[in-house]
Amino acid sequence: MDNKSVKMAEHPVAVLDWIGGAESGVLRLLDQTLLPGEVSFCECGTVGDVHDAIRRLVVRGAPAIGVAAAYGMVTALRDMAAGDAAAYLESSRPTAVNLSWAVRRIAAACGADGTPADALAEARRIHAEDRAMCDAIGRFAAPLVRRHAAGVGVLTHCNAGALATTGIGTATAGMYVAAAGGCDLTVYCSETRPLLQGSRLTAWELQRAGIRTVVITDNTAAALMGAGMVNMVIVGADRIAANGDTANKVGTCGLAILASHFDIPFYVAAPSSTFDRELAAGSAIPIEFRGDDEVTCGFGRRTAPEGVTVWSPAFDVTPAGLISGIVTDRGLIAPVNEEKIRSRLSGGQ
Amino acid sequence: MDNKSVKMAEHPVAVLDWIGGAESGVLRLLDQTLLPGEVSFCECGTVGDVHDAIRRLVVRGAPAIGVAAAYGMVTALRDMAAGDAAAYLESSRPTAVNLSWAVRRIAAACGADGTPADALAEARRIHAEDRAMCDAIGRFAAPLVRRHAAGVGVLTHCNAGALATTGIGTATAGMYVAAAGGCDLTVYCSETRPLLQGSRLTAWELQRAGIRTVVITDNTAAALMGAGMVNMVIVGADRIAANGDTANKVGTCGLAILASHFDIPFYVAAPSSTFDRELAAGSAIPIEFRGDDEVTCGFGRRTAPEGVTVWSPAFDVTPAGLISGIVTDRGLIAPVNEEKIRSRLSGGQ
Repeated sequence: MDNKSVKMAEHPVAVLDWIGGAESGVLRLLDQTLLPGEVSFCECGTVGDVHDAIRRLVVRGAPAIGVAAAYGMVTALRDMAAGDAAAYLESSRPTAVNLSWAVRRIAAACGADGTPADALAEARRIHAEDRAMCDAIGRFAAPLVRRHAAGVGVLTHCNAGALATTGIGTATAGMYVAAAGGCDLTVYCSETRPLLQGSRLTAWELQRAGIRTVVITDNTAAALMGAGMVNMVIVGADRIAANGDTANKVGTCGLAILASHFDIPFYVAAPSSTFDRELAAGSAIPIEFRGDDEVTCGFGRRTAPEGVTVWSPAFDVTPAGLISGIVTDRGLIAPVNEEKIRSRLSGGQ
Repeated sequence: MDNKSVKMAEHPVAVLDWIGGAESGVLRLLDQTLLPGEVSFCECGTVGDVHDAIRRLVVRGAPAIGVAAAYGMVTALRDMAAGDAAAYLESSRPTAVNLSWAVRRIAAACGADGTPADALAEARRIHAEDRAMCDAIGRFAAPLVRRHAAGVGVLTHCNAGALATTGIGTATAGMYVAAAGGCDLTVYCSETRPLLQGSRLTAWELQRAGIRTVVITDNTAAALMGAGMVNMVIVGADRIAANGDTANKVGTCGLAILASHFDIPFYVAAPSSTFDRELAAGSAIPIEFRGDDEVTCGFGRRTAPEGVTVWSPAFDVTPAGLISGIVTDRGLIAPVNEEKIRSRLSGGQ
């Protein structure tokens, strides 16, 4: 895997690209581990390279991981059977649902005798669908952004942005579309401890796209709302239960409670694939806990005493009742309840 | 100023001590800039050493700064007039109210011909009063801690602890007294971006005192409350208006809103000197803004893009209506309103 510094030109950001043909081409990935300090790309020419890049978080965000893994199958089929390749790539991040979904779809499309060319054709379809999903969310979210936040500000948390997808992101999609249409917009990014995806990634991609961007620490959100500086919150989602309860990066539920207190609309933006209708409510969503070191030594320096206990859930669950609406690629769900969700996801209005 | 590593034995922590007599003694300060990694002390033998230590935040927290400056006057009077010494020490941190109050009190007590011995006698009185203030808050707060948080948890923010005073702290006073009395207590410390006083300082002093201590990122508070893990919040205060609106470290107001949402009692603990009854309400409290670098490069590494805007108020204001009670050295004020505050501070019940 070669790292080479390249200045990006595309708008908003080229998270990944397939360069060349099926037999000798490579997957080029923006190395997100080096942001915001350095814009540099990795070229993955073998399935081992792709596996390593996903494992090391060079590419992250469920939709982007799915597309990267799909292209990883192209490199894999040069010297592996489709089933083996899929299992190997799935082992890079075992809990990423989009990853398994993408590699299995490629394996199924290729069949037992699949060639790299077959895989490339299907991977390109997955890639195009991901971009179209973002565009659809952007179309439905932009009017909400214009209505609530034009001339004022919108707050987002973590990174559900272009960097997490291969298009214009999910939480950010409405911002990019509204800004492109001339909406006067300021986006506040809460830095999102412990891994700082808000300040490292979201602020970076928005600033680069020419959108007025302000970073705050996570604990500044109430002061910001109290000062009348934001009129809307939009966040992404990791999993949404049948009743609309939404798991997302830790801190999201707190922002929803603050938004409710200050009477500010709070929206979730997510592809319809984020709904897990097998789960009746948010209490059934399993929550991953993170290692202590991300909190105590997250920046290469010890910032808490040796041996102290840390409580570090990666996600929290925001009750549906605190969510003004969920913007999906199939349209807006508001108010958020089981019936509205069922109706929207089955194509009804 | 010599730095030497010494293992501390005192409970909870020896923030500062005067070692020796008036003519040749030194002010020994715990170097808080090195916590939690290293426990080491500075010995200040001249007023220049004390000035430098206050400026560099070796000692911080309004009450502790006041006592340090009082002892600084002892070293100063060896070769300066009292008025000049006071003006010089005040210039170390111009906005610290306790600092000016302490050096002026020493200057007034000594008169024009004051000797180091006169200053030392008055400095020891200021020091003793500070410890007594903390003890009084602890006596009034401990029953609240026992009632609400025994067997469960209490959440605090920033450091209004022993490290900010020369005694058992303000927000922490009730915890130390309750724990010493056998109360089964877990204290959750929110890390408090940008300067991490919660994880670096509060967690350090509580852990060292043998109290069960857990660090969380600031954005984890809602998840913690939602999980039923805390039954009480106690924080310090930087300034309290006549109506009870309270300015404290940014993030405090957000915690008060979350506590109200989850029906968890939210207390402020502060000496009566924290009240500024000239200010009718919190909106009149001036809010200091901090430099961008604390947010963008706070860990010695860039964590936000170059040139991005940062909005970083040091404090926020919690409305009196969200505060269950204010614990002072003169007793508990609850409910929090102008009349109760006036009555308590003028000695009534």
